[in-house]
Amino acid sequence: MKLVVRTTEPRFARIKKKWLARGQTQDASVESAVREILEAVERRGDAALREFSERFDGVKLRPQDLVIDPDEMAAAAKRIARREYSALKLAARRIRSFHRHQVEKSFRYKDELGISLGQEIRAVERAGLYVPGGEAFYPSSVLMNAIPARVAGVDEIIAVTPPHAGGEPDSVLAAAHIAGVDRIVRVGGAQAIAALAFGTRSVPKVDKIVGPGNRWVATAKRLVSGRVSIDMVAGPSEVLVIADTSADAEHIAADLLAQAEHGPDSTAICLTPSVRLAKAIEQEVIAQLAVLPRAKLARQSMGTGGAIVVTRNIREAIALANEVAPEHLELAIRHAERFVKEIRHAGAIFVGHYSPEALGDYLAGPNHVLPTGGTARFSSPLGVQDFIKRTSVIHAPKKALAQLGAAVVTLAEMEGLSGHGAAVSRRLRGR
Amino acid sequence: MKLVVRTTEPRFARIKKKWLARGQTQDASVESAVREILEAVERRGDAALREFSERFDGVKLRPQDLVIDPDEMAAAAKRIARREYSALKLAARRIRSFHRHQVEKSFRYKDELGISLGQEIRAVERAGLYVPGGEAFYPSSVLMNAIPARVAGVDEIIAVTPPHAGGEPDSVLAAAHIAGVDRIVRVGGAQAIAALAFGTRSVPKVDKIVGPGNRWVATAKRLVSGRVSIDMVAGPSEVLVIADTSADAEHIAADLLAQAEHGPDSTAICLTPSVRLAKAIEQEVIAQLAVLPRAKLARQSMGTGGAIVVTRNIREAIALANEVAPEHLELAIRHAERFVKEIRHAGAIFVGHYSPEALGDYLAGPNHVLPTGGTARFSSPLGVQDFIKRTSVIHAPKKALAQLGAAVVTLAEMEGLSGHGAAVSRRLRGR
Repeated sequence: MKLVVRTTEPRFARIKKKWLARGQTQDASVESAVREILEAVERRGDAALREFSERFDGVKLRPQDLVIDPDEMAAAAKRIARREYSALKLAARRIRSFHRHQVEKSFRYKDELGISLGQEIRAVERAGLYVPGGEAFYPSSVLMNAIPARVAGVDEIIAVTPPHAGGEPDSVLAAAHIAGVDRIVRVGGAQAIAALAFGTRSVPKVDKIVGPGNRWVATAKRLVSGRVSIDMVAGPSEVLVIADTSADAEHIAADLLAQAEHGPDSTAICLTPSVRLAKAIEQEVIAQLAVLPRAKLARQSMGTGGAIVVTRNIREAIALANEVAPEHLELAIRHAERFVKEIRHAGAIFVGHYSPEALGDYLAGPNHVLPTGGTARFSSPLGVQDFIKRTSVIHAPKKALAQLGAAVVTLAEMEGLSGHGAAVSRRLRGR
Repeated sequence: MKLVVRTTEPRFARIKKKWLARGQTQDASVESAVREILEAVERRGDAALREFSERFDGVKLRPQDLVIDPDEMAAAAKRIARREYSALKLAARRIRSFHRHQVEKSFRYKDELGISLGQEIRAVERAGLYVPGGEAFYPSSVLMNAIPARVAGVDEIIAVTPPHAGGEPDSVLAAAHIAGVDRIVRVGGAQAIAALAFGTRSVPKVDKIVGPGNRWVATAKRLVSGRVSIDMVAGPSEVLVIADTSADAEHIAADLLAQAEHGPDSTAICLTPSVRLAKAIEQEVIAQLAVLPRAKLARQSMGTGGAIVVTRNIREAIALANEVAPEHLELAIRHAERFVKEIRHAGAIFVGHYSPEALGDYLAGPNHVLPTGGTARFSSPLGVQDFIKRTSVIHAPKKALAQLGAAVVTLAEMEGLSGHGAAVSRRLRGR
């Protein structure tokens, strides 16, 4: 495995080009099938949901088995190991605490003319949370998606997850209980998104849909977007580590592999001005692969999406990071804190030698749902902001309208909208 | 023209159903043509832009005529009438002042374990602003879209607008000058959106595209969304007025007609518990239509999207407003201010008898780009928030990682991601 490359080598240009082009694919291959599923659920509701579950998940559900209520979630929370329960509780407490800092307040002020202007913050009424249930289960994802909604003040949180014949995993049910999910509906895929977007007997129509999913889910979210709000469609996960000689090669290698074990299309990059550190990290990656349970996956993704890049200096590394706009950025360098302000585009910044991405993935507190594929240029981590909306408020006294009236009429006339001018001038006549 | 209907009449159910279904159409008719335009611009840049301008707008541009620079905008600002210039300046000042209240600050705090957690706010680098240029020109729209970007701290604002053989209107150029637009590119339609999304020689690639447009523009925005951030796709404009006997029928009628003059698919609804007021407003609508320059359009849209609904009481009117989630909501009632907190879903609320929508359209200060078609359930007015993004920051000392390490390892194991656990445990070995 050859991971080390210098920014001065010609082949680095190709590598960089590949980085910058990542995440630009849109998958239209399942679109027509997804459209049919959406229409069927909109027309036939729960009956369609049960049919699709039988066809796609091989699970035949009776109507009364579709919904998992809070009591069942609470029971699952009692069944999991004590230390698992405690870890989930700790994570939930820390996530809640961070997201409370994001809560925005409504504001109101009076301007110099006596006009009261403001902005009211309101939570959306209902949020839907997609919980994938294929090869793996991610209770942390339930916490990260549901808790910001709860903190925002959403009235009701509905989770959906593909049904399994033997019932859903306790870890996910327990996380839903801890996060305060109101109802889990045993339905997955595009049909679950359709149910959340249109509403059925068992699934109330929601205002916002969040949570990761496969391409059926992502396509369905894209197609219902506009009728309901969706979160960003997440691409493969990425980490970019900037390291100098103050960093430990063993730690950096472990972070690259933690990213690589996610899946074959993960991106794990280290930028360092030290050739020696670069080589040491490469050696460590090879050594640690020998003991990593998910080595096969990790080796594959290090081969395609992994690199240890020797930069001219730290400046060049910072500039490259801003171009890449990575989902996760680690600053494993001296005076790391000083460089935070120079990072313009990243989902999350992990500062110093003891802030591995894994800490943020589970329980540092900030959200682990982060913009991928360079979308950190214009997107933000999932947060309380995703579950609220603003309403402007304008309250003018007659005197203020009189002072502004002529300007409104002038602007309305410039745009040929004299009815707009009349709405003002009719209020001011005979004063 | 028969506009009055009671909520107790059977036909009201049909009307309400139509309201709630508004804005649910997606226009796919031009999608394949738009895809071709996007591809051509991505491949051939400025040359494709000039070809499309010649084909669609009938304007043949030399390469050097594509861009309007700040000097030309400043010159236009000197050519318009003094009172027009002053009105634009006044509007810009008020819009700027309101949007400054939306500026969010980065935050940082230390938790009880000594972990520094925070959120950095950064502006997007470049924003693109679509300025329609068909039958009418809307300088107010330039102000409303560009000023929040400037307040957010966006580095560069690029406006695009369809070319006219005689040059672009001074009113729009002057508004761009006042709002601080850096460059106007004379290109419209889907090709303009493509240029902003992909970049060409004359049009730098932007991170965020805002501004209204026809279905070609809307479709192009939808298709490039994800590679670049877009604002919501605006539907036809709407006002819902709640009035009681303290309101003046003449004023309410003028507000309904100001909405109706926008276009044939506008929605203009008044809800009132007073039959007498309802009938008086209807009479006023008819009377004012006789003197309204855009009477033909307004009559048409009042016929299809207009209604004066007699409710049982004010409560019912408020409940209906929350169901409709209107773009503009006027509270022309006694103690109007008390009802603001009961409005959960609206783009903007106009409180009292002297806060007509027209004031907000031009210069109250809050944005006039508002969620339409019921999307106020989950969307917000355009604002500073659309031009910034957040980055999470995590900085843990070793001691804190040691205290949380076991829980991270437990959670990683629950999810089968032992590499994540290793990234933490390798940092804590031998301590």
